[in-house]
Amino acid sequence: MARSAAALVIGNEILTGKVHEANVAALAAELFAMGIALRRVVVCPDDPAQIADDVNALRARFDVVITSGGVGPTHDDVTVPAVARAFGRRVVRDEALVERLRAHFGDRTSEGHLRMAELPEGAELVAGPASGWPLVRIENVWLLPGVPEIFRARLPLLRAQLGDDAPFHSHAVYTRADEGEIAALLEGLEAAHPGVSVGSYPRLNDPECTVKITFDGRELGPVQRARDAFVQALPPNLFVRKEPA
Amino acid sequence: MARSAAALVIGNEILTGKVHEANVAALAAELFAMGIALRRVVVCPDDPAQIADDVNALRARFDVVITSGGVGPTHDDVTVPAVARAFGRRVVRDEALVERLRAHFGDRTSEGHLRMAELPEGAELVAGPASGWPLVRIENVWLLPGVPEIFRARLPLLRAQLGDDAPFHSHAVYTRADEGEIAALLEGLEAAHPGVSVGSYPRLNDPECTVKITFDGRELGPVQRARDAFVQALPPNLFVRKEPA
Repeated sequence: MARSAAALVIGNEILTGKVHEANVAALAAELFAMGIALRRVVVCPDDPAQIADDVNALRARFDVVITSGGVGPTHDDVTVPAVARAFGRRVVRDEALVERLRAHFGDRTSEGHLRMAELPEGAELVAGPASGWPLVRIENVWLLPGVPEIFRARLPLLRAQLGDDAPFHSHAVYTRADEGEIAALLEGLEAAHPGVSVGSYPRLNDPECTVKITFDGRELGPVQRARDAFVQALPPNLFVRKEPA
Repeated sequence: MARSAAALVIGNEILTGKVHEANVAALAAELFAMGIALRRVVVCPDDPAQIADDVNALRARFDVVITSGGVGPTHDDVTVPAVARAFGRRVVRDEALVERLRAHFGDRTSEGHLRMAELPEGAELVAGPASGWPLVRIENVWLLPGVPEIFRARLPLLRAQLGDDAPFHSHAVYTRADEGEIAALLEGLEAAHPGVSVGSYPRLNDPECTVKITFDGRELGPVQRARDAFVQALPPNLFVRKEPA
């Protein structure tokens, strides 16, 4: 099994530059470690119709969809009603979540707080081993909060729920080349090593390495062979180091 | 005039978590300062068919489209042929750019380097006041490089070319509230102040402020009135400060 994934980041604050998006990098690294291929990220505004359209487009096309943001208590938190709309479901208030909110906020519990107990009808709540807030899942769509510290804290639970696919193997060669100089060496590598994705990444402010070349694939053998073929073809004075060594 | 914009970030390295995306935040802040509304960001892989689809979807829907990445000399730099495909144009080699590359790289000039002189036929080259590499524009699509230092360095030239729209006004109130507590205060504000977008952003690790409320709009009067109405309704002990003061 080799699943694909997409992320939908919801929030005007990202699009106006007020908040630096910080969840995609963590999610991308986690999915890569899980062997799930993140194929698309969309950032959209706090607009229920737009969110619903994006959820529907992504869930039809990818095995797993993760949303980030818009699940808090305020008027600009519109992810739950938007996802409900995408699935053609009503928004309902979950009594167990209401109880948890009342236990937490006590006399201060407001209608705003109780909005956090609202879910698309039929959504599944997935509780982790600790007593943290559950993950919300509707079919292949997982709703995560946008606050980076909380988002990252939910990733282990998401991973436990999704389970891992066959892992990606990722090897790298650090060089002192300039990209134009080694472009020809890289040109045929992917064709000669099917299933290996070769990336070339210039590093402007790295005193040790000017270009990092990466070799990714599901099978270790072809990844190693592609990397070795590159190292053999690379003029030795341009070679810095391999990873893993 | 109030234009909309979208960004297309191209690169497997973002989707595998190898590289933290760093250009959207800078672009979003610049566009916001220019009064141009960034409405959508898409991150897609180094796949020419996918890039062409995304370019066509975005350029039809938004006034300005900015791409980031995939314009270097290596095999995984496929933005130029993909954008050419989106516009149904050929890829051609620009002789003036070839000369610049030869002047820069001298005897070391490789076919890889010369790939950087390739453009969709009919693309416009926009040179800045300094002698830096020109911006590439095809109709409403602007091709920017992915390396963050270079991307950011091109933004002033992009801004000079696009020109500013009427600016957004953005005011903020920092509070010691929790979001659920003030949700009701925020609920009707947008309806009462048409043209003002109100955002509520929890701050987990800020000792001074727990929730920042923002008021954005094209007209200063309604933005100020929405902010003042919120401050008046906010219990004084929850108020920290306003911005601007």
